[in-house]
Amino acid sequence: MAAPLDAKAGKGEWVGQNILSVEQFGVDSAKRVLRVADEMKAMVKRDGSSDLLKGKLLANIFYEPSTRTSCSFQSAMLRLGGLVVSVNESSSSVKKGETLSDTIKCLSCYADVLVLRHPVKGSAAIAAAATEKPVLNAGDGVGEHPTQALLDLYTITSEMGTADLRGKVVTMVGDLKNGRTVHSLSKLLAHFGVTLNYVSPASLQMPRYIVEELAAKGVSQHETSDLESVVNQSDVLYVTRVQKERFESEDEYNAVKDSFIITPATIANAKSSLVIMHPLPRVGEISEAVDSDPRAAYFRQMENGMYVRMALLALVLGKA
Amino acid sequence: MAAPLDAKAGKGEWVGQNILSVEQFGVDSAKRVLRVADEMKAMVKRDGSSDLLKGKLLANIFYEPSTRTSCSFQSAMLRLGGLVVSVNESSSSVKKGETLSDTIKCLSCYADVLVLRHPVKGSAAIAAAATEKPVLNAGDGVGEHPTQALLDLYTITSEMGTADLRGKVVTMVGDLKNGRTVHSLSKLLAHFGVTLNYVSPASLQMPRYIVEELAAKGVSQHETSDLESVVNQSDVLYVTRVQKERFESEDEYNAVKDSFIITPATIANAKSSLVIMHPLPRVGEISEAVDSDPRAAYFRQMENGMYVRMALLALVLGKA
Amino acid sequence: MAAPLDAKAGKGEWVGQNILSVEQFGVDSAKRVLRVADEMKAMVKRDGSSDLLKGKLLANIFYEPSTRTSCSFQSAMLRLGGLVVSVNESSSSVKKGETLSDTIKCLSCYADVLVLRHPVKGSAAIAAAATEKPVLNAGDGVGEHPTQALLDLYTITSEMGTADLRGKVVTMVGDLKNGRTVHSLSKLLAHFGVTLNYVSPASLQMPRYIVEELAAKGVSQHETSDLESVVNQSDVLYVTRVQKERFESEDEYNAVKDSFIITPATIANAKSSLVIMHPLPRVGEISEAVDSDPRAAYFRQMENGMYVRMALLALVLGKA
Repeated sequence: MAAPLDAKAGKGEWVGQNILSVEQFGVDSAKRVLRVADEMKAMVKRDGSSDLLKGKLLANIFYEPSTRTSCSFQSAMLRLGGLVVSVNESSSSVKKGETLSDTIKCLSCYADVLVLRHPVKGSAAIAAAATEKPVLNAGDGVGEHPTQALLDLYTITSEMGTADLRGKVVTMVGDLKNGRTVHSLSKLLAHFGVTLNYVSPASLQMPRYIVEELAAKGVSQHETSDLESVVNQSDVLYVTRVQKERFESEDEYNAVKDSFIITPATIANAKSSLVIMHPLPRVGEISEAVDSDPRAAYFRQMENGMYVRMALLALVLGKA
Repeated sequence: MAAPLDAKAGKGEWVGQNILSVEQFGVDSAKRVLRVADEMKAMVKRDGSSDLLKGKLLANIFYEPSTRTSCSFQSAMLRLGGLVVSVNESSSSVKKGETLSDTIKCLSCYADVLVLRHPVKGSAAIAAAATEKPVLNAGDGVGEHPTQALLDLYTITSEMGTADLRGKVVTMVGDLKNGRTVHSLSKLLAHFGVTLNYVSPASLQMPRYIVEELAAKGVSQHETSDLESVVNQSDVLYVTRVQKERFESEDEYNAVKDSFIITPATIANAKSSLVIMHPLPRVGEISEAVDSDPRAAYFRQMENGMYVRMALLALVLGKA
Repeated sequence: MAAPLDAKAGKGEWVGQNILSVEQFGVDSAKRVLRVADEMKAMVKRDGSSDLLKGKLLANIFYEPSTRTSCSFQSAMLRLGGLVVSVNESSSSVKKGETLSDTIKCLSCYADVLVLRHPVKGSAAIAAAATEKPVLNAGDGVGEHPTQALLDLYTITSEMGTADLRGKVVTMVGDLKNGRTVHSLSKLLAHFGVTLNYVSPASLQMPRYIVEELAAKGVSQHETSDLESVVNQSDVLYVTRVQKERFESEDEYNAVKDSFIITPATIANAKSSLVIMHPLPRVGEISEAVDSDPRAAYFRQMENGMYVRMALLALVLGKA
C-alpha cells in the first residue's frame, strides 16, 4: 500500500498510489514532485486555477484540527478545478461506534481521492487498506506527515535555486525528539547528500533510531546543544517548537528555552543565503523581528505546501 | 407542500417540489427517480461531473451530525456542477433564539435548493412552509428520511437488474421498531408487489400501524424472531442496527443480540443472488468477513445514495 | 490600511483595498457599491453565477459563529465563480497559541482575499496589517461591520427606487446603544441628507459620540422613546433587537419591551412606501404577522447582503 515510488519511472505509474510515508520517496520520485510543484506554482501565479482535476472529488478528512494543513489541501484541490467535501471529527459517525475502515469505505463511495489526518499512528495505512482510491496521509499522530517533508524539501530547493543539495548544511533546531516534521525531513534529506546538524536540549535529542538509520546510509550528522556553534556554517536553519510540556520540569524548560529562540542577533553573522524555516505555528521560537529578513522563508514554505499538495493530487490522479 | 409526485407525469412538473416524505412516491415517480439515478451514475462513471446545475446553490443544513448523508448530498450537488454552502448546528443562529422558519427564510435568500436534517419530527415540513425554494428532507428525527428509502429501492432494483420486484422476498432484520429506514422502505416497497419478512426481537417489532397500513394495501407480511427460518428464501436481506440502549434491560439485550448478527454462516445457504443491505453505520451487525462476499451490497448502496440524490436535486431544479 | 475610497475615482483603484470601516465610504464610493450590487443582482437573477472571480480563492475566517454573514460571503464568492475555504474557531490553530497575525499570514499564502469575523474590536485592522491581500471586515466585536451598513443602504435605495435620499426620514428602533449595525448605518447615511429618528428606551440611547459626530456634519437627528410619535412620518423603519440582558433589571426590561415590538397595528397608518428593515436574527421584535406586509423588506435585505458582498469582492479583486 505504501509502495516505493522511485522505481515507477514510466508515465502514469503514480496513478492510484497512496502517499503514506516519506520512506516511499527516493531522489527520483522526490524530484518529480518538485518539478510538478514548480509547474503548479507557475500555473497558480499565471491563472489562479486550472481544470486539471475537473470531475474529481477529494474527501478531506480531519480527525484532529489542523487549520493550515486542511486549508492547504482544500486550496490545492480547488485550484486544480476539483471538488472538495470536508469531514471533521465533530461531524463524523465515529461517535456512533463505526470503525475507521467503514468510514473510509463509505467516503470513498463519493470521492476519487482521500486525505486523512488522524491522531493515531498507523491510521493512514488502515485507511489505505480500506479503499482502492488513493489515500494521502496528512499526519497520523506520532507517525508520518510525508507532505510536510516534501514541502520542506521543495522550499529548500526552490530557495536555493537548485535541487542539487550535495554538501549543503541543514541545521535543525528545537525539540528534535518529538518533532514529527524533522524526523521525516531528515529521512528524506538523507538521499540528497546534505550534512545535518541537530541542535536541541539534551533531553530532546533526535531519536537514536533515526541517527543510526541515517548513519548507516552514510549521512554526516552532528549533535550539539549550542546553536551559535553551527548557525554561521548553515545553509538551512529549520526551527521547531519547543513545548514546555515536553520537559520533565519547568526549571529544565526555563534553563534552555532562550537558547532556541531565533532573533535578528542569532543570524546576524549567518550566511546571506541562509534559508530560515519553521513548520508553523510558531509560539515564540522565531522573533517577529526576523519576519522582515529576506532569509525568513517560513511563510513561503507555507505557500509551497499548496503547490506540493497540488502536485501530489495531480500525480496520484494521473493528471500531472 | 409534500405533494404526491405520481400524478405529475408531464415533463418539468417536479420543478420546485419538496421531497419530504416517502408517501409522496408511487410506482411511476419512484421509477422516474431510478431512471434518472441511472443516468447520473453513468455520467459520474464517464465524466466525474457535469454542468447540469451550474449557477444553482444548495444550502446543506444539518442540525445533527450525519457524515454520510451530508457528504452524499454535498457530493451530489458538486458533481452536478452546483455550489454548496454548509450550515451545521454549531454555526447556526438558532442559538440566538431564531425560529427555524426564519433561519430557512434567510438561507433561502442565498440558495436555490435546501437540504435539511433536523432532530425534530415535522421540521422539514416547517422548513418547506417557510420558503418557495424546494426543500429535501434529509431526516427529521423519528419522522421521515425519504432519500434513504429511495436509495434503498434503487440498490434493490439495480442489484437485481430489474425494477419489477413482484414476488420478491425482502427480509428486514434487527430493530424494526425504531428503525426509521425500514419504516420508510417498507411503505415504498408496498407499491412493488414484494413479500416482506420482519425479523426482530419481540420488543423491537415493526410498529402495528405500519403492518396494518401495508396489510390494507394487500402486502404480504410475515413476522418472526428467527432469522434462520427465512434467510434462505430471501431475495433481499436488509439489516439494521440493534442498539443496546433500546432494550429494557441488558439481560434482554444479551439474550438476543447474537441472533441478529450476520456472518458468513448465516448466509451460507442463502440464494446466490441475495442482496445484503445495511443503511450504515454498522456496529457489528454484519461481520466484516461478509464484506468480501459479492452479495454484500451495502457499500454499493452507499454509493447509490449519491446518484439518487443527484437525481432528486436535478428533478426539483428542473434539470433532469 | 483602511483607506478612504471616495477619492479613488479612477478605474481599478479599489484593487487590493481593505474594507474595514464604514468610515472609508463617502457618497461616491457608496454609490459605486450600490451600482455594482445592482449588476450582481441582475446577473444572479439571469444566470445564477458567473466566472468573474474564476481562479480567485476566499479564506472565510469566522472566529465566532454567524450563519448568515458567513453563508452570505460564501454564496457571494461561489456565485462569482470563485473558490472558498472556510475556517472557524474550532478548526483554528489559535488554540496552539498562534497570533492572529500569523494565522492571517498563513491563510493569505493560499487565498487571494480574506473575510474575517472576530469578537475583538480592531482585529480586522490587525489582520489587514498582516497581509497584502485585501481583508474584508465581517464584524470585529463592538467595532465595525461595514458590509452590513452597505447592504442596509442598498436595501433602502433599492426599495425606494432611488439613491437620492435627501429629505427622507429613517427611524431606528430598539437598542441603539449596543447595536453595532445602527451605529455604522447612521454614519453612512450621514452623507445622504436624511433625517434620523432614534427610538429607544432611555437607557439604550444612541451613544453621544455618534449623535455629536453627526450633528457636526449637519445631520438632523431626533431622539424619543415614543415610536408612535414618529412612525407615520417615517420612510424607513429600522428595527433592532432589544436584548433582556442589556437592561439593568428585569423590571426595567419588562416596562419597555412591548413598546418596541412591531405589529400590524404599529404600522397601520404608516406610509404605504414604508421600508421595514431588521438586521436579523429577530427574536420577537417584529411580529410574524408583519412578514406578509409588502413593506416588510427584511428578507429582501438579507438577500441584498449577497449582492453587496459580491460587489465588494469583485471591486477589491479588480473584476467589477
